[in-house]
Amino acid sequence: MESWPPGGSGPAEAGRRPRGLRGADLAASASLLSGAGAEAGCSAPAVAAVLPAGGSGERMGVPTPKQFCPILERPLISYTLQALERVSWIKDIVVAVTGENMEAMKCIIQRYQHKGISLVESGVTRHRSIFNGLKALAEDQPNCRLSKPEVVIIHDAVRPFVEEDVLLKVVTAAKEHGCSDYDLEFGTECLHLALKYCHIKAKLIEGSPDLWKVTYKRDLYAAESIIKERISQQICVVMDTKEDEEHVGHRLEEMLKNELNHVKVTSGRDIQQIILEQCYNFVCVNVMTSDFEETQKLLNMLEESNLSILYPVVVISVQFLDYESVPFGQKMENLMQIREFAKEVKKRNILLYGLLVYYPQDEQKLQESLRQGATIIAALIKERNSGLVGQLLVA
Amino acid sequence: MESWPPGGSGPAEAGRRPRGLRGADLAASASLLSGAGAEAGCSAPAVAAVLPAGGSGERMGVPTPKQFCPILERPLISYTLQALERVSWIKDIVVAVTGENMEAMKCIIQRYQHKGISLVESGVTRHRSIFNGLKALAEDQPNCRLSKPEVVIIHDAVRPFVEEDVLLKVVTAAKEHGCSDYDLEFGTECLHLALKYCHIKAKLIEGSPDLWKVTYKRDLYAAESIIKERISQQICVVMDTKEDEEHVGHRLEEMLKNELNHVKVTSGRDIQQIILEQCYNFVCVNVMTSDFEETQKLLNMLEESNLSILYPVVVISVQFLDYESVPFGQKMENLMQIREFAKEVKKRNILLYGLLVYYPQDEQKLQESLRQGATIIAALIKERNSGLVGQLLVA
Repeated sequence: MESWPPGGSGPAEAGRRPRGLRGADLAASASLLSGAGAEAGCSAPAVAAVLPAGGSGERMGVPTPKQFCPILERPLISYTLQALERVSWIKDIVVAVTGENMEAMKCIIQRYQHKGISLVESGVTRHRSIFNGLKALAEDQPNCRLSKPEVVIIHDAVRPFVEEDVLLKVVTAAKEHGCSDYDLEFGTECLHLALKYCHIKAKLIEGSPDLWKVTYKRDLYAAESIIKERISQQICVVMDTKEDEEHVGHRLEEMLKNELNHVKVTSGRDIQQIILEQCYNFVCVNVMTSDFEETQKLLNMLEESNLSILYPVVVISVQFLDYESVPFGQKMENLMQIREFAKEVKKRNILLYGLLVYYPQDEQKLQESLRQGATIIAALIKERNSGLVGQLLVA
Repeated sequence: MESWPPGGSGPAEAGRRPRGLRGADLAASASLLSGAGAEAGCSAPAVAAVLPAGGSGERMGVPTPKQFCPILERPLISYTLQALERVSWIKDIVVAVTGENMEAMKCIIQRYQHKGISLVESGVTRHRSIFNGLKALAEDQPNCRLSKPEVVIIHDAVRPFVEEDVLLKVVTAAKEHGCSDYDLEFGTECLHLALKYCHIKAKLIEGSPDLWKVTYKRDLYAAESIIKERISQQICVVMDTKEDEEHVGHRLEEMLKNELNHVKVTSGRDIQQIILEQCYNFVCVNVMTSDFEETQKLLNMLEESNLSILYPVVVISVQFLDYESVPFGQKMENLMQIREFAKEVKKRNILLYGLLVYYPQDEQKLQESLRQGATIIAALIKERNSGLVGQLLVA
């Protein structure tokens, strides 16, 4: 995994803090980078990003600096890195963190398998941190894998929801206007400095409402809800039978579609493909079988796919209860082994729940239990509550 | 219930929109109210509040105006009214809503039992709405129960977390500085108007970070999480036995205290008193009995108390399973009647869940099941998921 330069030569070891530079040098220094990528014969990436992440998060009212606060158990900065990594034309990302947090940051990069990230030590101010990041990009050392970029995006580590289109606007404007440093906050000091000290005109790019900054504790709550909502937009229904289109499994699927009309409900014909499409919710419907064999197959596929590295994946194993064949108590007892499965897969960030749906002869009652089943499935997917894994719910 | 003036004479029927007034008249008009409460022999309340709530919530990206968006199924504006009602020295609250939303607003006032609220029709701008509210307070009609206040607080309907201390600062400053209209937003148009047109000096009062405005959809998420957190700060444990301090119920209580160290865990000696203190979480531990009699008593008390009018109350009925006496399946079957209770009390905003805790002889295993029980209780209280009511969870 290429996560940060190993050994002592890369910017990860950047105790080499620039001496005696004023904040104003930041923008000037950044401007030196401009045009570097346009040199003839240079295969360097056109765009890089610098993330100042040395803040202490005082306003948050929590002891952890906000960029390291967990959302669904993953630190906020990892979401921001993910957002930037998704943009294919950002070749290098330099993160400036305090020496104190350097090791923790390395662990984050490794655990969440971030690629193309370099670390530098942050400065005492945000501008110093940015400067250190720019310096790492500007240095053309033999052992350094970083290359001089044409444009450098300065992006806050605590703005996790940045979209490619906004970044593209920034880069396009940077190229057109010759600016060297962009920041999307109105009235930011960076903009002020660029206007004051550079012989170039800074341009303000309108951000989207998504581009907000996690500042207070309430913003962490909001971020968590937004992330939960985003990964709950698709549900894959996996059946243990494919023949009978009329059976109760398909009826449950239809009910899910009706109840969750904003959610895409996919039939799991090709689960590998659906995993590749990053669906984080699976409903494994067992009609023909009354064990966890099908669920186990699905869990194996999920484990192999590494899908759950970034987000918790919800798997709901559904069984039906026909009172006439097996008594409720016995059925429950048989299914309690789900607790052990759940405990095991929880370690790999897969949240497994069981759902037992009554299957009465009476059509109206069946309709009702299917509806309740859909409600429970929706609730489990929406909340992604890790405290309830292994539970067997009854509809 | 005194919720809005009945009949056609009160400001609820305020189709009487002021003619030809400019925005600037607002502050001037407001200044007329200043000192009204100080008149000799006047028993009028000293302070009133006007809530402009006629906005359409365009930025929210949802069809419902943001002040009517539900949080835990209750409209946002009801939380704001609750925050103002709690302040004993605010005698009158005037809400300005569009004619279209007048009936909905009346329903909200009735359903959540808000007191001392008057309704006026909002204007086409925020200032017009405020003006209409002030006008209702200034009018000294015989049929109008409103009295001229000394100070009027203008408060956004979408700032639900306003605290008494901030309001008190505003009122104190208003009295000292003679200002008639205060708004806590820096650079607000109200402040601008007051400075421009009034011969008084407006004073800016520093708000708290809690005083934020629900503007975007993410703010609704944040508000919901904050409210959930606030009502989860206290758990009352009710036991069906009081003698043996060593028994498993007390051990579960101790485990809860350890696991949830930020939460106040109260023993339910005097449940009526605890209900009065507005505790919204109850764990009913059944050690001596294996039915729902104790839970039913608690539910009856909660229903009589009306505690659940404003927030959903969580009740978790805990049973223990001693494998040697009753088989698991049979125990589960016996306890399934909780589903019916839960369905019934859900109608009154009480969220009932069941929890079956294994009671093995092995001390280490018992410790483990108690810990898991505490985790499940914490998860249920934190999420307050209405989709899972009536479920029987197993620790």
